[in-house]
Amino acid sequence: MQLSNRILSMQASPIRKLVPIAEKAKKSGKKVYHLNIGQPDIETPKVFFDALKHFDEKVLAYSSSHGDLELIKAMVDYYKKYGIDYEPSDIIITNGGSEALLFAIIAVADPEEEVLVPEPFYTNYNGFSVPVGVTVKPITTSPLDGFRLPAKADLVKVINPRTRAILLSNPGNPTGVVYTRDEITMLAEVAKEHDLFIIADEVYREFIYGDLEYTSFGTIEEIEDRVIIVDSISKRYSACGARIGSIASKNKELMANMMKLAQSRLCVPTIEQVGAKELYKVDPSYFKGVNDEYRRRRDLVFKMLREIPGVIVEEPKGAFYMVVKLPVDNAEEFVIWMLEDFQYNNATVMMAPAEGFYATPGLGVDEVRIAYVLNEDDLKASMEILKRGLESYPGKK
Amino acid sequence: MQLSNRILSMQASPIRKLVPIAEKAKKSGKKVYHLNIGQPDIETPKVFFDALKHFDEKVLAYSSSHGDLELIKAMVDYYKKYGIDYEPSDIIITNGGSEALLFAIIAVADPEEEVLVPEPFYTNYNGFSVPVGVTVKPITTSPLDGFRLPAKADLVKVINPRTRAILLSNPGNPTGVVYTRDEITMLAEVAKEHDLFIIADEVYREFIYGDLEYTSFGTIEEIEDRVIIVDSISKRYSACGARIGSIASKNKELMANMMKLAQSRLCVPTIEQVGAKELYKVDPSYFKGVNDEYRRRRDLVFKMLREIPGVIVEEPKGAFYMVVKLPVDNAEEFVIWMLEDFQYNNATVMMAPAEGFYATPGLGVDEVRIAYVLNEDDLKASMEILKRGLESYPGKK
Repeated sequence: MQLSNRILSMQASPIRKLVPIAEKAKKSGKKVYHLNIGQPDIETPKVFFDALKHFDEKVLAYSSSHGDLELIKAMVDYYKKYGIDYEPSDIIITNGGSEALLFAIIAVADPEEEVLVPEPFYTNYNGFSVPVGVTVKPITTSPLDGFRLPAKADLVKVINPRTRAILLSNPGNPTGVVYTRDEITMLAEVAKEHDLFIIADEVYREFIYGDLEYTSFGTIEEIEDRVIIVDSISKRYSACGARIGSIASKNKELMANMMKLAQSRLCVPTIEQVGAKELYKVDPSYFKGVNDEYRRRRDLVFKMLREIPGVIVEEPKGAFYMVVKLPVDNAEEFVIWMLEDFQYNNATVMMAPAEGFYATPGLGVDEVRIAYVLNEDDLKASMEILKRGLESYPGKK
Repeated sequence: MQLSNRILSMQASPIRKLVPIAEKAKKSGKKVYHLNIGQPDIETPKVFFDALKHFDEKVLAYSSSHGDLELIKAMVDYYKKYGIDYEPSDIIITNGGSEALLFAIIAVADPEEEVLVPEPFYTNYNGFSVPVGVTVKPITTSPLDGFRLPAKADLVKVINPRTRAILLSNPGNPTGVVYTRDEITMLAEVAKEHDLFIIADEVYREFIYGDLEYTSFGTIEEIEDRVIIVDSISKRYSACGARIGSIASKNKELMANMMKLAQSRLCVPTIEQVGAKELYKVDPSYFKGVNDEYRRRRDLVFKMLREIPGVIVEEPKGAFYMVVKLPVDNAEEFVIWMLEDFQYNNATVMMAPAEGFYATPGLGVDEVRIAYVLNEDDLKASMEILKRGLESYPGKK
């Protein structure tokens, strides 16, 4: 029997596919610094675990398909702080941002239709589109100018009658880009003029460094019925393993239809929602502390990368990733070599080869994504290892 | 902007769509007995909650996309008791049986391809197929003969070159049917002769009443590379809100490709897996107690239904549902009427109209699905209310 073409044509996750090689390296006794995955080391606020400990139902029942109303109300309050005015019925709780993305893509596009995405992009945008028959059409951006969007006249060239939405993360994963108000306004105009939805993945909303202004699509009133906001507690509260996300829109027809998807999968875990509700009540000073920590990490990694000969990197402004051009022929081969054949002080680093973050063939071949989610000492050690690895690597450009 | 055709064409869940009407009835002060949804009242084994309380990581990190290895090993041991011989790599943990079904459908069928399903079927088989462009092709079965499968010669008539799999639940939701060894063997032959996968939803494996033999597709060696077993802890351990399921197959290529889907959504909640692992170690005597309880409930409901004039129902043999033919013009209208306009001792019952469990238009219009998931007193009261409701209902046949 034959598997479906769609599953055969899916690429393996560039973030996770090399994990078995890393496991082997670890078994051989090598320490591996994981810069490949956005798994923060920041402690999850204790209120989450406390809520779990106090859960005292005898039957672990389904929750509502829509999501726990108390959690949704906590989210409504959270959004208000950012000038985003949602009602509880505008929000559905999802299994992580992942399910929110899947729902959004299904709701706006049929098979053989297209979604525009600035590349490099969070690789799983492809991972959710391909299985449901939707094509990711790239808007190419480059590390050489800090991943700015092209001018409107260039951007609209990729739009055709099958284009249904623009999907993007802001702050950007994997680029760390934070779009300017002008860029956001331009995209809003494009959406209006070409009758598109905007699927705004804003899970890194709090991770902005320096005094940059942040413009959420949730604040652009003229297109409020076109905007779908994808969100998640994973990074915001360092709770990746909770798998609590949300999808929000003021488009009532969209939300009513999306509820059919939510009802099909019954609900999101009941207890995780109880914990998540407490997280949304955490004092905003928490973000300040976390943000300062990440800014220091970014500064450290950026500075050390700039000192490595041949490395090209612009200062990322948000999230906790950067895409780095390396002086190597092939970054995936380099990453594997680092795991299998290199060590310094009995340790090595794992990064994510960036080619899988691009839809245009051939782009990103010499780039990696680095997640600066470790403490400063570990990051320092990692950059030292990377530098020495590049010095000894036989496949250097 | 236009929503996708696929989402517009999805039906609302017949199990959940009338919930707002039930909520209104409750607000008016009426008690509503919920026979519409398979939410058991049986206590979740305490070991689940204990494991949660003892979770003492500081960071709630992602788990592996494949699933927690300890949980998978516990499942391997569990399957062994049923003569099903899986290795850890044959199993992926999923977000409930729901995600396992979605993965299976995506993996075996492309858009415009078909999956055969005995009808009436668990309505969300449609809910997972429609969004990914797959058509559910019904094999019609009837309450008049206890939902037996048709003879092989009749069954194969619905197969065409676009048919990719047979999907079925055994024991059956919503029918309570338990397929005989002959029926299972016949389906296995059909799968082999027509090169199809079998997606076997066996989440009610333990819920078999009387001395019936149960044949899992996991024990049919000749087709082991065609069999995909969908499973879940929701009903088995009365842990619906945990959303822990699994998908299993000995087809290595299938599982390797399915991992791409698993990696896209990153992982299943970390803590729920810690709890689930303990459930799989619960002593099998637990099932015996639960099973006895459900058998008593079935006997009670079946007996009382048989005594209501005009009601047609065969004794269900497994799961905890039955599909009942009512002497009404339209079962959905009757269910709404029961919620809005009827009460007995200030209480009413909610059932799931069965039409949405059929793919063939017009079938099931006068049928409901009853889930006997309440205690005997509540079920007794519910059947009394149903009886009196039918007596007063103006839309009687």
